[in-house]
Amino acid sequence: MRDSLRAIKNIKVEYYQIPLAEVLSDAKHGDHTHFEVIAVRVMTKDGYEGMGYTYTGGKGGRAIYSLLNDEIKPGLIGADSSAIMSIWDKLQWDLHYVGRGGLLSFAISAVDIALWDIKCKRLSAPLWQVAGGHRDKTACYAGGIDLNFDQQKLLKNIQVYLDRGFNAVKIKVGKQDYKEDVARVAAVRELIGADKTLMVDANYSMNVEHAIRFAKAIEQFDITWFEEPTIPDDYKGFARIAQATSIPLAMGENLHTLHEFGYAIDQAKLGFLQPDASNIGGITGWLHVASLAYTHNLPICSHGMHELHVSLLASQPHAGFLEVHSFPIDEYTTRPLQLDNGEACAPDLIGTGVEFDAQLVKPHLVKQS
Amino acid sequence: MRDSLRAIKNIKVEYYQIPLAEVLSDAKHGDHTHFEVIAVRVMTKDGYEGMGYTYTGGKGGRAIYSLLNDEIKPGLIGADSSAIMSIWDKLQWDLHYVGRGGLLSFAISAVDIALWDIKCKRLSAPLWQVAGGHRDKTACYAGGIDLNFDQQKLLKNIQVYLDRGFNAVKIKVGKQDYKEDVARVAAVRELIGADKTLMVDANYSMNVEHAIRFAKAIEQFDITWFEEPTIPDDYKGFARIAQATSIPLAMGENLHTLHEFGYAIDQAKLGFLQPDASNIGGITGWLHVASLAYTHNLPICSHGMHELHVSLLASQPHAGFLEVHSFPIDEYTTRPLQLDNGEACAPDLIGTGVEFDAQLVKPHLVKQS
Repeated sequence: MRDSLRAIKNIKVEYYQIPLAEVLSDAKHGDHTHFEVIAVRVMTKDGYEGMGYTYTGGKGGRAIYSLLNDEIKPGLIGADSSAIMSIWDKLQWDLHYVGRGGLLSFAISAVDIALWDIKCKRLSAPLWQVAGGHRDKTACYAGGIDLNFDQQKLLKNIQVYLDRGFNAVKIKVGKQDYKEDVARVAAVRELIGADKTLMVDANYSMNVEHAIRFAKAIEQFDITWFEEPTIPDDYKGFARIAQATSIPLAMGENLHTLHEFGYAIDQAKLGFLQPDASNIGGITGWLHVASLAYTHNLPICSHGMHELHVSLLASQPHAGFLEVHSFPIDEYTTRPLQLDNGEACAPDLIGTGVEFDAQLVKPHLVKQS
Repeated sequence: MRDSLRAIKNIKVEYYQIPLAEVLSDAKHGDHTHFEVIAVRVMTKDGYEGMGYTYTGGKGGRAIYSLLNDEIKPGLIGADSSAIMSIWDKLQWDLHYVGRGGLLSFAISAVDIALWDIKCKRLSAPLWQVAGGHRDKTACYAGGIDLNFDQQKLLKNIQVYLDRGFNAVKIKVGKQDYKEDVARVAAVRELIGADKTLMVDANYSMNVEHAIRFAKAIEQFDITWFEEPTIPDDYKGFARIAQATSIPLAMGENLHTLHEFGYAIDQAKLGFLQPDASNIGGITGWLHVASLAYTHNLPICSHGMHELHVSLLASQPHAGFLEVHSFPIDEYTTRPLQLDNGEACAPDLIGTGVEFDAQLVKPHLVKQS
């Protein structure tokens, strides 16, 4: 009887295109003018409603909407909303032929986050407690998408981060001439001083030789990690870079299956793992990677959607740094991210703590079902 | 001036759902009641039209349609239709964040095949010549999707293949009790006699121990390959199975990036590679894998869409076996597959040799743009 009350009664899907205040660029994805959010609302027979979502940098959102609305939704009606791992596993196999990562992982993520929202609500507890309960705060950094900013604007942007209270910042690299990247790193280190944390992110734009040359040149600036120096599939290339420099490597936003993380851990000699719950299969997928990280003595970090990841990072004893991303999804929620003495605070709200502000997102709704 | 004449002027996308004559089942994808075809027509300024397509086992087609229509089409208008490798590379990176295999590979495949159709038409040559020109015929086998057939029906279906002139057949395995699979393999070998070729396909339904036990039990029946014994991501599991049996392993339909093939070749100890041009990035992707196979001393095979792959297999000196798949896409084209003394004949038509019969597919058109 309990199972049937917990059954999923209805699912709604919403697709938003949200413009960015200004065009943001990195080395490999080009210009971002907007981001997409695809939200899923899951309603149960016993009256719970959970909201999950995923996002993209501007492309593919309508295909994710199709996967959710046309393929996934019909099979979920009537399923036990508390059988989260069964649903996660079933969706992977039901759509395996067109899946194994890629867009399917984004769609599964949205569903999974909605089911975790319901799980937390059933427990009357916030996500940071349900996911592990280690702390309600986490170290974090401001991740700039700033490759197209000239040096003056780059530094002005970093100053804004410092003024907001961040103790750690990340900049994009990947200019044609690596010496320009070196000069930008040097300028940012000079601005922030010796005590703040600094990371760099090439968005896989460099070949291995280029990445090694650049890494050696910036070692003197105390760099906490070098993110995606080369393409994410080249695990052995990552390993060559890692062996050539003392700067730890980081990756994760482009690994969309647990197997990819497994191979990357085995072969790429990573220093930090950065799964994104919006594309690794939601909270279930993220926690699987967190478990892999724990097992392999690696700090667990995140990419994007900081309003959700803040609770996941806070929950884990081996948390590294939460990325506070330049896509301000949190500004469209009822509880934008809060900092306390340079740390990010997990919401003490029941559920995932993420709810879109209906008035703020309404103008950006493109379609719904 | 030539470049601008070759520019892409327009692109049309068509989405079909085509019912199967009867429900077909395998061990992991469940029941197939229909298949999906997503076709792309590319028109150039100088009057050429190329047709490319991809297909699925019934799910995800509308998301592929969205990728083609919403994301890919706008960027291709005006591009040089003869710059096939540039377009292939650009599409991979433009949509990388939601890509790296998965559904994106299906969408890129359809575009790429259309561009190859145009390339062949510009050369006034058939695909088997343009792709390599080795032969105009290839060895082939009939691939049954027959796990739900009882033994009597299974054998009757195999007899139909023999009557049609096939010298090689493949059956599905993956019954709950592996002894039942062994009995079915024994019965099929007895029916076809010692001289015909027999393969088995588990659709990754077995764990490693199960697969080894089964493989050892069927070695006596002269099995040419054991396809997808376990999940495609478990390269080391494949290697354990390969080392425990003399039956070569085969895989490919679920590897959707060149990197995945690279790792599989390095680690899975495969005997046969089976890329599918509909999900590895079209003819460009398939030929990349054929090159990898040649380099690593492996026969190149195929999965699905035999009406197209017949030309690719025929073109290569290291061709293994063409799969003649149970989804009869070719029956909806103007030139269904032809056999000659057990070999499949590549069409001697200018272009890919694949054109849908407008009257036959029209009733199954769901949407177009």
